[in-house]
Amino acid sequence: MQAIGRRHWAIAEGWIPSESSFSDHALISHETACILNTGDKEAHVMITVFFADREPVGPFRVTVAPRRTLHLRFNDLKDPAPIPRDTDYSSVFESDVPVILQHTRLDSRHSEISLMTTTAYSES
Amino acid sequence: MQAIGRRHWAIAEGWIPSESSFSDHALISHETACILNTGDKEAHVMITVFFADREPVGPFRVTVAPRRTLHLRFNDLKDPAPIPRDTDYSSVFESDVPVILQHTRLDSRHSEISLMTTTAYSES
Amino acid sequence: MQAIGRRHWAIAEGWIPSESSFSDHALISHETACILNTGDKEAHVMITVFFADREPVGPFRVTVAPRRTLHLRFNDLKDPAPIPRDTDYSSVFESDVPVILQHTRLDSRHSEISLMTTTAYSES
Amino acid sequence: MQAIGRRHWAIAEGWIPSESSFSDHALISHETACILNTGDKEAHVMITVFFADREPVGPFRVTVAPRRTLHLRFNDLKDPAPIPRDTDYSSVFESDVPVILQHTRLDSRHSEISLMTTTAYSES
Repeated sequence: MQAIGRRHWAIAEGWIPSESSFSDHALISHETACILNTGDKEAHVMITVFFADREPVGPFRVTVAPRRTLHLRFNDLKDPAPIPRDTDYSSVFESDVPVILQHTRLDSRHSEISLMTTTAYSES
Repeated sequence: MQAIGRRHWAIAEGWIPSESSFSDHALISHETACILNTGDKEAHVMITVFFADREPVGPFRVTVAPRRTLHLRFNDLKDPAPIPRDTDYSSVFESDVPVILQHTRLDSRHSEISLMTTTAYSES
Repeated sequence: MQAIGRRHWAIAEGWIPSESSFSDHALISHETACILNTGDKEAHVMITVFFADREPVGPFRVTVAPRRTLHLRFNDLKDPAPIPRDTDYSSVFESDVPVILQHTRLDSRHSEISLMTTTAYSES
Repeated sequence: MQAIGRRHWAIAEGWIPSESSFSDHALISHETACILNTGDKEAHVMITVFFADREPVGPFRVTVAPRRTLHLRFNDLKDPAPIPRDTDYSSVFESDVPVILQHTRLDSRHSEISLMTTTAYSES
């Protein structure tokens, strides 16, 4: 299979609800960046998180092994700082090898869940 | 971090429900244009709103500070005119520096919320 | 404002639920192609609808006036034939001038509505 | 009608809920890759599925007839192996002729359904 992807990605939307109607990990309100590395080299990804009213935070660093996908929850980011809940943010991803990025939110503030997803914005 | 983005964006979908089941600001039915400015200069953005049966309205003008994100609610646009509710519209964004744009609707007409999002259409 | 867009678009997803929990026009289960014409000439759009197991149907013809948006419900297409409900389909749009296309489904089979949207696939 | 599309596609998101509140086929929790072949030749599509912690599985092989759409449920893939439920995955599609790909999830773990969709990432 031919490796595909791009090295620069951005997700302009970003908002993690602080509330959830469920304690099951799969159903806790969350935002995910699904990062697919189709190639044969490790992807070293630097993430910068932008806010409305203060300087960006980052880089957060994650590694995606060759031929692996990482469904990264923004909820789980901790270093250099956690992502605040109920707060507008955006994110930019820079990888040293081509990857593919898709953004998803699961919202369970109420008794039914709501989902949204989009292929992120990319540049070579 | 390398600044990324494009200067021309469009969202063909547009419809703000007039009803909401909640009074909490986060849960009022709304549409958002999330505008990310990753660069070191202010982004001056002109928004033109298109309708089904009358001339476009605009430009609305917003500024996104360097290295900031603006989650702009169409509900909040007032100058030169508010966006009518329960009405088909579309929007075009022109920025003097590259930005990244994502469209989201939260619909709370009923007792559960529904979400949708997409990276907007872009041109350099 | 500079006119933007592309002339060829496709929506690979397509499925109109036959059921709705509401009789309000806005809440009847539907799929929409939002077509934005930012330019100064009429857009003459030909739509071809593809199915899983039979020849495509079309062209359906719609006109989008200059500087107008058309939120076209697939539910309302009738000539040369209506779109069957509960049936897999896809659609291709060819316009004589650049337009922008976004796909949305509202599903109200159950007592809460569910939404999804995406910028369609485009070629110049 | 002019044939359009691309030969390489990827969906970084992937997760099939193991639970459903309904037994109706249309309402069982599922993920779909809608593949549109607008051209006059059969599309032979090879799908590779990536996971978080083990080697990719594939190729899965599907054929999309000329001028047809295939709304392929990941739930139905069986050869060389079924897609596990409640498991992070991603997918890459390689076609010998241009096609168009859109990703959709219907989640019915709870009593209301939730939908999400996006045009997949593509390369020529």
